[in-house]
Amino acid sequence: MNVAIIGASGYTGLELIKILINHPKFNITYIANSTGEENVQDLHPCLKDVIDVEVQKADAKEVAKAADLAFLALPHKTAMFFAKELLDLGVKVVDLSADYRLELETYEKHYCPHEDKEHIKDSVYGLPEYYSEDLKNAKLVANPGCFPTAALLALLPFIDYIEEGSQIFIDAKTGMSGAGKGLKEVTHFGHLNENCHAYNPFNHRHMPEIEEKIQKLTNKEFQINFVPHLLPITRGMLVSVFATLKDEIDVEKILEDRYKDSEFIRLRNTPVDLKSTAGTNFCDLYVSRNGKALFVNSSIDNLLRGASSQAVVNANLICGFEEYEGIPKIAYVP
Amino acid sequence: MNVAIIGASGYTGLELIKILINHPKFNITYIANSTGEENVQDLHPCLKDVIDVEVQKADAKEVAKAADLAFLALPHKTAMFFAKELLDLGVKVVDLSADYRLELETYEKHYCPHEDKEHIKDSVYGLPEYYSEDLKNAKLVANPGCFPTAALLALLPFIDYIEEGSQIFIDAKTGMSGAGKGLKEVTHFGHLNENCHAYNPFNHRHMPEIEEKIQKLTNKEFQINFVPHLLPITRGMLVSVFATLKDEIDVEKILEDRYKDSEFIRLRNTPVDLKSTAGTNFCDLYVSRNGKALFVNSSIDNLLRGASSQAVVNANLICGFEEYEGIPKIAYVP
Amino acid sequence: MNVAIIGASGYTGLELIKILINHPKFNITYIANSTGEENVQDLHPCLKDVIDVEVQKADAKEVAKAADLAFLALPHKTAMFFAKELLDLGVKVVDLSADYRLELETYEKHYCPHEDKEHIKDSVYGLPEYYSEDLKNAKLVANPGCFPTAALLALLPFIDYIEEGSQIFIDAKTGMSGAGKGLKEVTHFGHLNENCHAYNPFNHRHMPEIEEKIQKLTNKEFQINFVPHLLPITRGMLVSVFATLKDEIDVEKILEDRYKDSEFIRLRNTPVDLKSTAGTNFCDLYVSRNGKALFVNSSIDNLLRGASSQAVVNANLICGFEEYEGIPKIAYVP
Amino acid sequence: MNVAIIGASGYTGLELIKILINHPKFNITYIANSTGEENVQDLHPCLKDVIDVEVQKADAKEVAKAADLAFLALPHKTAMFFAKELLDLGVKVVDLSADYRLELETYEKHYCPHEDKEHIKDSVYGLPEYYSEDLKNAKLVANPGCFPTAALLALLPFIDYIEEGSQIFIDAKTGMSGAGKGLKEVTHFGHLNENCHAYNPFNHRHMPEIEEKIQKLTNKEFQINFVPHLLPITRGMLVSVFATLKDEIDVEKILEDRYKDSEFIRLRNTPVDLKSTAGTNFCDLYVSRNGKALFVNSSIDNLLRGASSQAVVNANLICGFEEYEGIPKIAYVP
Repeated sequence: MNVAIIGASGYTGLELIKILINHPKFNITYIANSTGEENVQDLHPCLKDVIDVEVQKADAKEVAKAADLAFLALPHKTAMFFAKELLDLGVKVVDLSADYRLELETYEKHYCPHEDKEHIKDSVYGLPEYYSEDLKNAKLVANPGCFPTAALLALLPFIDYIEEGSQIFIDAKTGMSGAGKGLKEVTHFGHLNENCHAYNPFNHRHMPEIEEKIQKLTNKEFQINFVPHLLPITRGMLVSVFATLKDEIDVEKILEDRYKDSEFIRLRNTPVDLKSTAGTNFCDLYVSRNGKALFVNSSIDNLLRGASSQAVVNANLICGFEEYEGIPKIAYVP
Repeated sequence: MNVAIIGASGYTGLELIKILINHPKFNITYIANSTGEENVQDLHPCLKDVIDVEVQKADAKEVAKAADLAFLALPHKTAMFFAKELLDLGVKVVDLSADYRLELETYEKHYCPHEDKEHIKDSVYGLPEYYSEDLKNAKLVANPGCFPTAALLALLPFIDYIEEGSQIFIDAKTGMSGAGKGLKEVTHFGHLNENCHAYNPFNHRHMPEIEEKIQKLTNKEFQINFVPHLLPITRGMLVSVFATLKDEIDVEKILEDRYKDSEFIRLRNTPVDLKSTAGTNFCDLYVSRNGKALFVNSSIDNLLRGASSQAVVNANLICGFEEYEGIPKIAYVP
Repeated sequence: MNVAIIGASGYTGLELIKILINHPKFNITYIANSTGEENVQDLHPCLKDVIDVEVQKADAKEVAKAADLAFLALPHKTAMFFAKELLDLGVKVVDLSADYRLELETYEKHYCPHEDKEHIKDSVYGLPEYYSEDLKNAKLVANPGCFPTAALLALLPFIDYIEEGSQIFIDAKTGMSGAGKGLKEVTHFGHLNENCHAYNPFNHRHMPEIEEKIQKLTNKEFQINFVPHLLPITRGMLVSVFATLKDEIDVEKILEDRYKDSEFIRLRNTPVDLKSTAGTNFCDLYVSRNGKALFVNSSIDNLLRGASSQAVVNANLICGFEEYEGIPKIAYVP
Repeated sequence: MNVAIIGASGYTGLELIKILINHPKFNITYIANSTGEENVQDLHPCLKDVIDVEVQKADAKEVAKAADLAFLALPHKTAMFFAKELLDLGVKVVDLSADYRLELETYEKHYCPHEDKEHIKDSVYGLPEYYSEDLKNAKLVANPGCFPTAALLALLPFIDYIEEGSQIFIDAKTGMSGAGKGLKEVTHFGHLNENCHAYNPFNHRHMPEIEEKIQKLTNKEFQINFVPHLLPITRGMLVSVFATLKDEIDVEKILEDRYKDSEFIRLRNTPVDLKSTAGTNFCDLYVSRNGKALFVNSSIDNLLRGASSQAVVNANLICGFEEYEGIPKIAYVP
C-alpha cells in the first residue's frame, strides 16, 4: 500500500521514514515538509545512500494522488487542516499530533478552537492494547501522546483496584527528543547535560489526556497528578505511577492476566530501564506494592512506541495487516 | 583545629579533602584509608600540586595524636568500630556512614547488629536545619543519608498539613556517584549511559531513615513509599515528594516561613534543577499544588549537601564556628 | 545456511545475534558462551520476546553438527583453539578476534605464541573493499580490528601520494564499548563521564596491524604513529589521519575514484560525525588538504562496521551471497 | 582593587564572576551586559543568595567611575570599541576576545578591519608562562584563545627540536561551552549527544594565532595544521600535537626543564585527561615519542585556563599580585 509522510523534518518524521523503508506492506510514495526544497538525504544525512526521494511542499491533493494512507507528523493545529482535507479526499490518516486525541470540549479547553468538528467524532485513539477492535474499522487514528502511552499502559489494569477518591501521582522522565529538533534553551547541550528537572508540573497537556482516557475506558474518575521531567539523554521514557490500593492484592497477576496476549508488552521482574526498549515498539512494565501503596513502572522509546512505531502499528491495524508487520523489536542503540 | 579524614579513597573522602584544604578554621593533619600506601596525589590525580600528604593506614590512636576531630568516610559497620575508639580517646566524630543515624532497633532491623550501643544513644542527626541546637553540644554527629537529606528538607515543613493515614510517595533520582567508586555493573558506562531506571523500589535503607526522622521530629507516623532512580550523570540528586493535603493551603508560604533564616536553603519559583546546586551545599526547593495534591521538589549535590559539605557544616556547628565557614556556595561545574 | 555464534555474552556477540535474527539467508542454530547456563533472553534482556534460545557451553563438535559457519566473538588466544578445531571439522569461520589478522611473526611479536600455524597462512583479512576477491574462496576470515578498519579505509587510497619517509599520524577516538562489557576502571561511569583521554599512545596493538596491511597491499613502508582516545559515549569511532603529500593533488577525486562502487562507503563534503554511521555498516569519509598537509576523516560504528556487521558482510561474501544481504543501513539510535 | 566585568551573560562572564567573588584582592563593583535589565541572580540562577548586584547596560564612563580594571567578555569587534574607550579613561583592560591577540595585519586578514590601531600595538599576549615580564607593565592584556593556550603550552618547548619544513598537526577536542550559550544546531542536545565531529578543519581562526605566536616567540616558521573537534561534554579541552623531530631526544626532560617553576603546569607520566583539570587553571601535559615522531598532549578547562581564570591570572600580574591569588586549583566537578 502506498503511503505518504507529511512532516518529514522532525524526529518523528525521520523515524517514520526509517520504519517504512523496510516495511513489507507499505511503500513510501510521498514525503513532504513545510518548505519542500531538498532531497530527503540532505534533510537527514543518515539517509544518504539509503533512500533517494525529493521532499515535497505538502499538498493534500498531491497526497491523494500518490497514496492511500498518510502519516501526519505535524504540530497540533496544522495537523487538523491537513487531516480534514485528506479524509475528504478518501485518504486514511494516522495523525501523530494532539488534534484528534481528545473530546472536542477537552481539546478546546487545553489547546485551541477545533477546525474539524466533523472528523474528531470518528477518530479512534490509537492505543492498540485497548482499542484494537475500533481500529480495525477506523479511517482516522489519533496516535496517543508519548506520556499517555506509557502512563495508560501502566495504570489502566489497576484502575478497578485503586481507592476511590485517592490521588494518583505520575512522575515521568523523558529523553529530550520529545521537545523536538527546534532550538530551545531547555535542549541546549549546555543546559541539559549533567542536569535533570521537572517542567510544567501539574500543568502539562498530557494530564487531561490521561484523565479523559481513564474515564472513557473505565467509567471512573480520578485526579491524575502528572509531573514530567527532562532527562539528559536523547531518547527513552520512564514512568512511575503511584497510587493507593483498596486492598493488598496480587499486583503481578493483574498485569500478567491483562497483557498475556499483547505482542509488544513485556513484563519484567525487576524495575524497567530505558535501554531495553530503546529503538523498539516494546513497552516494558514492572509492578511493586508496599502494603496498599502501588508502584507501576513503564518504559518506552518516546519516539517509537511514543510516536512513530505505534503510528505504524495503527496503520497496520486499520489496513488489516498483522499488528507486528515491519515493527522494530531490536535496535542497534548505545 | 586539626582534623583527620578516615576513608580518603572514595568520592566523599575526596570531597572532604577538597573542602577542608581551603577551610579557614580546619587544618588537615591526618588522611587515612584501608591500605595506607600512597601519597594522596596518587590516590586522586586531581590533587597533584595541590596537597602533599602521605595517606596512612587508619589507626585510631594515631588519629587521636594528630587531630581533635575526625571525619569518617567509611562503609557502615566499619565506621562504628573506629567511632567508638575515637570517641573513647576524646576525638570528636562526624560519621558519614549509616551507623549512628537510626535508633538502635531500627538500625539492627535494616543493617546488622550494632557494636557500639553506648554512643549510638548520644549521636545527633546532622540535619542542621532541624538539629542545630543539639549539634552545638554534640561529640558524635551522624551525617544524614543523601536521599533523607533531600527528602526531609522538602517534606518536613508540610507534615502537619498532610492527610493522616494517606500515602506519601517519594520518587528520587541520583547521579551515579552515590553508588561509589567500586566497579559494579550498574555504574559501568555501557549500562548507565543513555539509560535510567529505578532500583530497590520500596526497599531502600533510606526509607526507614526518612520514616523514623519524621516520627521523631513531628510525632506523626506516615508510610513513606520511596523509589530511587539512577540517572546517567555523575552527581546531583533530585527528589519529588507527592502527598495528599488536608486542605488547599498556601504551600509557598509554608516553605518561606520555615526556611527564611536558613543559610543553605533556596526557594525557587520554577522546578529545581541539578545544575544550580551541583558543587555547593545548597538545597533548592520548589513546591506546587493541584487541589489537595502536593508536589515538593528538592535538589542537592549528593556528594556535598548529601555527604561531605553537610559533614563540614556539622563540624562547624559542633566546634562553635559559623555554619557557613569554608562551605562551597559556587562551583566550577559543567 | 545454519550459523553458530560462539561468544554470545559480550557486545559484539549481542550485535551478531541482532543482525542474524533478521538476516534473510542465515539461520542461527547455535549460540554459546563460556558457561552455557542461561537462555539468551536472560543474558541480554533486550532480547526478551525476540529470540528464545538456550545458550550452550561452547563445544566445537556440537557446532559442527548444528552449523556450516561459525562466528567467533572470543578473546584472542581463546579464538585460535576453537577456529582450528572448527576448520578441521569443515566449518567455515569468521573470527572477530586478532588471532588470524597478522603474519605469524608480527602476531607473535605483539600478542603471544600462535597455536594454529597451519590455518593462519590461509586466513583472509576481512576488509571487503580491499579483499573481496580473496574472500570469495575463503574458509577462514580474520575480521579486522575496529581502528584498522576505520584507519585503512581512510588512508589506503592516498598511500601512493604520501611523501616517502614522512611520518603518518593517526588520532583516533572510540566509544567505550570497544573496551568490552567487563568491569574496568576506565569504563566506570564516574571515570569516563565528562572525560576524554588518550590511551596506549604509540603502543596499541592495532598500530602494527595498520602498518602490516599497508605494506602488504601497497608494497610501501610507512611508520604509523597511532594514538587512540576514549570518548564518553557508548558506540562510534572517529579517525583523523594526518600525512604529508608529495604534491598539492585533488584529494576528493582520489576518494571518489577509489570508492565509487563501494556499497558501504559514503563520501561526505563536511567532516564526518558519529551519529550518521551509528547502528549501521557504513564508513563515512571526508578529506581536506592544507598545502601538502592531508587530513582524512572516517567514521564507523565500532561494534558494527568495526566488528559484527563487517563480520556478517564477510560471511555473505564467503558464502556467495550479496555483500549487503541483511546488513543494517539505518538504525534507531539517539 | 575594584574591577568591572563587561559581558556577564555568557559562560566566560559567569566564570569571571565566580572567581572574582572569592578573590582576596579584587572587588567586583560593576557588572554589565548588553541589555542591563536584571539582577545577576536572575541572569545566572546558580548565583542566587551568593551575590546581589544589578547588571548594568555597559557604559565605559560608568566603568571608569566604578573600577580600575575591566574584564571584557565580549564578542570580537564589540570588544575593541570598549577597550579603546576604557584605556583612554585610564582603566586597565583584560580582553577575553580576539581583538588584541594578533598583529594588525594578521587580525585584519582573519577577522575584520581593526578600529583601535593605537592600542593593538601595546597589547601583551596573556600567556603567563611566556610573557610574564611583559605582563608586569601591561595596561592591556589580550587573553589567548582557548585552543592556542593548550596548543602553545604543549608545542613551544619543542619547537627548536622539530625538523625544519616538516608539517605540524594538531588534533584538538573541546567541550561545547566553547561554542557559547547562544542556540545553535551544533550545540543542540539532539545533535551533540553521543556524537563527535571535527569542524573548520585547517580553517579555524585559532590556527593563525598559533602560527604567529610561534613565529614571534621562536623566530621559526612552521605550517600548523589544526583540526578542532566538538566533544559531547560541557567543558574541558584536550589537544594532541604531532610533529617530526630532528633527533630521538629525551622529550620528558625538555618539558621538565621548561616548566619546573610554573605554578599552573603539571607534567603527567600517563596521557592527560579532562577530569583532572576541569574547574581549575591547571594545564596538564604529557609527552611521548616513537622514533622521531612526537606526541605532546595537553588538557585544560576551556572556560578557565582557556578563558576566565587565565584572565584573572593576567589581572594579578598586571596589578603586581601573586600569579596564583584567588585562582582555582580544585573544583567540585563530576
